Amino acid sequence: MNTTESLKWRYATKKFSSKKISTEDLSKILEAINLSASSTGLQPYRVFIVENAALRQELGEGSFNGQIASSSHLLVFAAWENITEEQINSFIAFMAKERNVSEETLAGYKAALVGGLLSRSDEENFSWAARQAYIALGTALIAAAELKIDSTPMEGFDAAKFDVLLGFTDKGLKSVVTLALGYRDSENDYNAGLKKVRLPLTEFATFIN
Amino acid sequence: MNTTESLKWRYATKKFSSKKISTEDLSKILEAINLSASSTGLQPYRVFIVENAALRQELGEGSFNGQIASSSHLLVFAAWENITEEQINSFIAFMAKERNVSEETLAGYKAALVGGLLSRSDEENFSWAARQAYIALGTALIAAAELKIDSTPMEGFDAAKFDVLLGFTDKGLKSVVTLALGYRDSENDYNAGLKKVRLPLTEFATFIN
Repeated sequence: MNTTESLKWRYATKKFSSKKISTEDLSKILEAINLSASSTGLQPYRVFIVENAALRQELGEGSFNGQIASSSHLLVFAAWENITEEQINSFIAFMAKERNVSEETLAGYKAALVGGLLSRSDEENFSWAARQAYIALGTALIAAAELKIDSTPMEGFDAAKFDVLLGFTDKGLKSVVTLALGYRDSENDYNAGLKKVRLPLTEFATFIN
Repeated sequence: MNTTESLKWRYATKKFSSKKISTEDLSKILEAINLSASSTGLQPYRVFIVENAALRQELGEGSFNGQIASSSHLLVFAAWENITEEQINSFIAFMAKERNVSEETLAGYKAALVGGLLSRSDEENFSWAARQAYIALGTALIAAAELKIDSTPMEGFDAAKFDVLLGFTDKGLKSVVTLALGYRDSENDYNAGLKKVRLPLTEFATFIN
């Protein structure tokens, strides 16, 4: 299945069946997410995979998104609340090791990151980090659909509650967006049969030749 | 090629060859972008495809991103600077038409959109719209790679200049992110042969079982 077919197949699943996603499929989705493009390569966000039913129940209480509790797995994307020189140092050290070069050869790149990122406010950097997580969200939706796994991205959740219950605050992270994964309950999901509505390309895209 | 293979194949292209992307391939990428998930379905952003060389030259002047001028096509994602009731009305009317239902049956959905979106500040809604564009950016990278088309997402551009030169200001849009598309010049691109650096999954992803 190619990307376009995957995207046509998927929809925002409202009702999941009780079928669980295999560990193997979950690993494939996570590998794809991890390979997503990330500005400067820094990957300033992390992904948490919540399978624990009691915890998902608690996270979903009071939310209009029943999928938090009823999905097979809940992915939570959390971004760094600020960017520190220590994080940049650690990234450069890792890159040097992975590419088998000395850190000195990356001094210019490091200086550009320090200059570019540390001169911005924490708010700007969090907003930037959150956008990188959204690139990964776009990847996750395609990777899941390719495996015939259904998904629902959800922005309407209690971020402060998530941050506490998932221990993000202690890790310097803040939740950004969540993604319920599982298998559709086609018979009971009103959304499963509805036509996907997308703008005509002539309205959505403009060519400047 | 599946998603993971596509993502492993792609990299942030620094130097493009002079080869142009075909209209057919460009259409496939745009179709995939348009099919990207978008919160509430509203698609609060648009995509501009700049082929005009003189215009790309002008857009790229003073930027460290030579790809603005040297790529085959430059995609610019621009989001609504604010959300209006008129836009919501038009979206609901379009959805009713596409699904062949009366607008009355969508009254509850419309009320939720009006209540949810119009109660937020313009800044919050622009930030939200920009994030939706980033989901589409994630799609575009995969759709291009699947066609063996190279790409470079670029955030370091002069947004104010883009808004003027591309006429966004008059359209109520603001540029969010750009994507250069084309074909790598493998011999002259220092980045083409470098190892992609990504965190070990054990550091990037955390399971809560």
